[in-house]
Amino acid sequence: MFANDPRLTRSAAPFLDLSLSTVLLKEDARWPWLILVPRIESAQELTDLSDADAARLLGEIRLCARAIAAEPRVERTNIGALGNVVPQLHIHVIGRRAGDAAWPGPVWGVEGKVAYDPADRAALLARITARLTTHTT
Amino acid sequence: MFANDPRLTRSAAPFLDLSLSTVLLKEDARWPWLILVPRIESAQELTDLSDADAARLLGEIRLCARAIAAEPRVERTNIGALGNVVPQLHIHVIGRRAGDAAWPGPVWGVEGKVAYDPADRAALLARITARLTTHTT
Repeated sequence: MFANDPRLTRSAAPFLDLSLSTVLLKEDARWPWLILVPRIESAQELTDLSDADAARLLGEIRLCARAIAAEPRVERTNIGALGNVVPQLHIHVIGRRAGDAAWPGPVWGVEGKVAYDPADRAALLARITARLTTHTT
Repeated sequence: MFANDPRLTRSAAPFLDLSLSTVLLKEDARWPWLILVPRIESAQELTDLSDADAARLLGEIRLCARAIAAEPRVERTNIGALGNVVPQLHIHVIGRRAGDAAWPGPVWGVEGKVAYDPADRAALLARITARLTTHTT
């Protein structure tokens, strides 16, 4: 049975299931940051997916990228599948702003963490969820 | 007319055109590292591509990921589209080995560079090219 790796959910909260992937919000207010986890048992690499599942995942990545790009002041969307620390296949979709805490470097491995203001977090999740659920993948 | 951003070709050499993307080899022997550049003028984000082009790109990413994963001792394949420094859409496909120069962090932004031995580079390119051209995307 499929389960999210607890190392992902320790710092990111699942909030929506798309048709293939569960979407998590990274608990770090420095960047609007989603993580997609395709619910395919033991998938670790993009190449572990069937052609059909990879195509579905691509649609969901693009949907999340559009949702993140619509956040205020986001200039670039970084998309990455690394898995060096947590092997379970997961795809990061991160909104980047010139001058953010890692700019122009990658966000992975950057020290520290900034907690969300609860009201800001709720508003962000409401906006993202609306964008993810008013489109079809 | 489409042209590779010179900031990409300054440190990576185009060696093969797939149906959508030109494939470049990053000139750094620390990692087997390909960069795919879809030949779509002014595309910057994955979401700038049509559905059809995105599907073609996905096929080419998976093809490159398999070619990199077949290199000796590669344990993970990191795939990333960032574009914080060079906005032209380009996708990194990087073979990672436990204990490599950035492990387990990302390779982007890591200082330094190690030149390839010319014979090693030629052999790597021959292997990669064979893998990329004996499959269809």
